[in-house]
Amino acid sequence: MGGDSAPDMVVDGVARARTRFPNVHFLLFGDQARIEPLLVLHKNLQASVTIRHTDQFVRSEEKPSLALRQGKQSSMQLAINAVNDGEAQAVVSAGNTGALMAMAKVTLKTLNGIDRPAIGGLIPTRLGESVMLDLGANVECDANNLVQFGMLGAAYARTVLGRERPTVGLINVGQEEIKGGENVQQAAALFRAATLPFDFYGFVEGDDLGAGTVDVFVVDGFTGNIALKTLEGTVRLYTEYLRQTFKSSLLSRLAFLLARSALKKMRTRIDPRLYNGATFLGLNGIVVKSHGGTDGFGFANAIGVAVDMVTNKINEFIMLELSEYGEQRPTEAVVTG
Amino acid sequence: MGGDSAPDMVVDGVARARTRFPNVHFLLFGDQARIEPLLVLHKNLQASVTIRHTDQFVRSEEKPSLALRQGKQSSMQLAINAVNDGEAQAVVSAGNTGALMAMAKVTLKTLNGIDRPAIGGLIPTRLGESVMLDLGANVECDANNLVQFGMLGAAYARTVLGRERPTVGLINVGQEEIKGGENVQQAAALFRAATLPFDFYGFVEGDDLGAGTVDVFVVDGFTGNIALKTLEGTVRLYTEYLRQTFKSSLLSRLAFLLARSALKKMRTRIDPRLYNGATFLGLNGIVVKSHGGTDGFGFANAIGVAVDMVTNKINEFIMLELSEYGEQRPTEAVVTG
Repeated sequence: MGGDSAPDMVVDGVARARTRFPNVHFLLFGDQARIEPLLVLHKNLQASVTIRHTDQFVRSEEKPSLALRQGKQSSMQLAINAVNDGEAQAVVSAGNTGALMAMAKVTLKTLNGIDRPAIGGLIPTRLGESVMLDLGANVECDANNLVQFGMLGAAYARTVLGRERPTVGLINVGQEEIKGGENVQQAAALFRAATLPFDFYGFVEGDDLGAGTVDVFVVDGFTGNIALKTLEGTVRLYTEYLRQTFKSSLLSRLAFLLARSALKKMRTRIDPRLYNGATFLGLNGIVVKSHGGTDGFGFANAIGVAVDMVTNKINEFIMLELSEYGEQRPTEAVVTG
Repeated sequence: MGGDSAPDMVVDGVARARTRFPNVHFLLFGDQARIEPLLVLHKNLQASVTIRHTDQFVRSEEKPSLALRQGKQSSMQLAINAVNDGEAQAVVSAGNTGALMAMAKVTLKTLNGIDRPAIGGLIPTRLGESVMLDLGANVECDANNLVQFGMLGAAYARTVLGRERPTVGLINVGQEEIKGGENVQQAAALFRAATLPFDFYGFVEGDDLGAGTVDVFVVDGFTGNIALKTLEGTVRLYTEYLRQTFKSSLLSRLAFLLARSALKKMRTRIDPRLYNGATFLGLNGIVVKSHGGTDGFGFANAIGVAVDMVTNKINEFIMLELSEYGEQRPTEAVVTG
C-alpha cells in the first residue's frame, strides 16, 4: 500500500517482475478490495500471487515511532513479519522509509556484529555501477559504523555484483590523510589496520562517484543522502537542458529525430528507475525500499534487487565474513587510542 | 604561482579578464623570470600589470599550518598582504585552498559578528544560478555557523546576483522538521525566530540544487564539498555518456553535426569553468579561489567574481546587515534552550 500511486503501481511492478522471475511467489499485503480488481488486469499473476488482507497501512508522513506503536496490523508490519517468520524471503516496499527502517530493525534485528543497519544503493558510473552506503539511515556515524558499512557494501559488491575483490573508498573532502572529521580519519585508520576481504582504497571525493573509482563508496547517512539526491537532481537538470537544446532550432529538432534511438539507449543508462531499490543492509532479513514516486518499471527493478540478494545469499555471506573478521573487530579502546 | 599550469594559465586568464575589465589593474606575485616572458605574448597587459617578484611559493600539497609558518614571503601571502594593506581590493588564487584560507584568516581576520568564514560558490540550476556555502572550509558546523552562512550567502545573492529578497534554504535529508542532526534543527529554529533581510525557506534536499528551489543553499563544509563535487562528477559522467551516444552510429554522428552549435551552447550552461571562482565569505577582504585545474578561461571567470564583489561592495553591505541584525544574534543559551 506504499508509494504515491499504490496499489496500482505495485501490482504493475509485480506483473513485470513475474515475467522476469517466473518462479517467484508474491504475497501482497493490503486492501483486498483494491488489489483484487487489479489482478484481473494481469492474467499472469493469478497463480503467483496471494493477497493477505489488512485495512491498516502506514501513511507516508507518519512518524516512524508512531507507526511502530500503532501499526501492528499495517501492511508494512505484516510484510516484515512474513520475512521474520520465514514465510517470505524478502520484503519490498515503496512506503515511508523511516517507518520501514524502524519496523525492520525492531522485528528482524541487526546481524551479529553490526551495530546499525545502513541503506545501500547502486549508482551509475563511467565503468557501470557501484554501491553507495549509507543513503540516509544514520544521520551521524562513528568510525565503527563506517567500517561496518564497508563490510556490508563489499559483501553486496561480491555477491550481487560479482566483483571478486571489491575496492572500498571512504568519501571525504580531500584525499590527503589529514582531511575530514575525526570519524572518517579513525575509520580510515581502522580499515588500514585490519585484514579485510576487500581492498581499502583510501579517501575518495564526490566526483569519484561518477568516475566509478571504487566498487563501494562509504559515507555517513546525512552526506550520503544529500550526495545521492544531488546526483539525481543533476541528471534531471542536464536532461532538461538537453531537452531545451533539441527544441531550440529546426536543425536540432532534426538532429533529435536522427539520434533518437541512441539517446533513448543512453537515458536508460542513467534512468533513476533502473537504480531503484535501496537495500537495508545489516539486518536479519532482506528489506528493499523502492522510491515512493516510481512506476511499475521502477518497482519491478526494486523486486529484482530483492531477488538478487536472496539468490546470492547475501546475509549468509555477510555472517560468514563477520565471524571470520570479527576477531579483529576493533574495541572502543583501539578506536580512540 | 598556484594551480596545475601556473603561471601560464594565470597570465592567460589575466589577459582575458583585462579585455572584460579594462579598468582593472593587476598585481602579479611570483617569479618575475617566468612571468615576464609570458607578458610579451599578451600585448594588452603591459600597461595593466605590475609584477611583484618573489621566489617563494606554496606547494599544492603543503600543509596549511606549515605554509602559514614558513611562507611569509610566498606569492600567496604577499598577495593577501596587498589586500590587507589596501593596495589591492581583492586577491585571486588557484593555489592550495587550505593554505589560502589559513593565511587569509590570520592576515585579514573575520568580519565582526562572523565566527568562521565560509567558502561560497555558484551552481547551475534550472532557473539560472544559486549560491551554495560552505563548500569545504568548515568540516563541522554548529547552528550559529550555519545561520551566519545564511547571512553571508544572502548578502552575496543580493549584491552580486541582484536578488532583491533572496530565499535561503538549509540542506537536509528531508523536509520534515524532525529530520537531520541537531545543528540543522537548531539552525532552522534560529532562522525562524529572527527577523532577517531574506526569506528563510526551510529545509531543502540534494535534488533542490539542480531545481534552483532557493537562491542560497546553506550546508556544512563536509557535505557541501562532497555535494558540489558529486554535481561536477555527474555532469562529467552525463557528458561522457552523451559523447559515446553521438559516436554510436552513423546517424547519431550526423545528428551531432546538426545539433553541434546548440549542444555547444548548452555545454556552456553547465561548464564548470563558468562557475569557477569560489569566494571566501566573512573575511575583512575579498579572496577568490580558482580551481587549480582550470584554464585561462576559467581563471578569468574567477577574476570576474572578484571584480563583481568589489564593484558591489559586498563587505560593506554584510557589515551593515550584521550590525542591524546583530542585536538579535542568538546567545548560546537561546540556541540550546
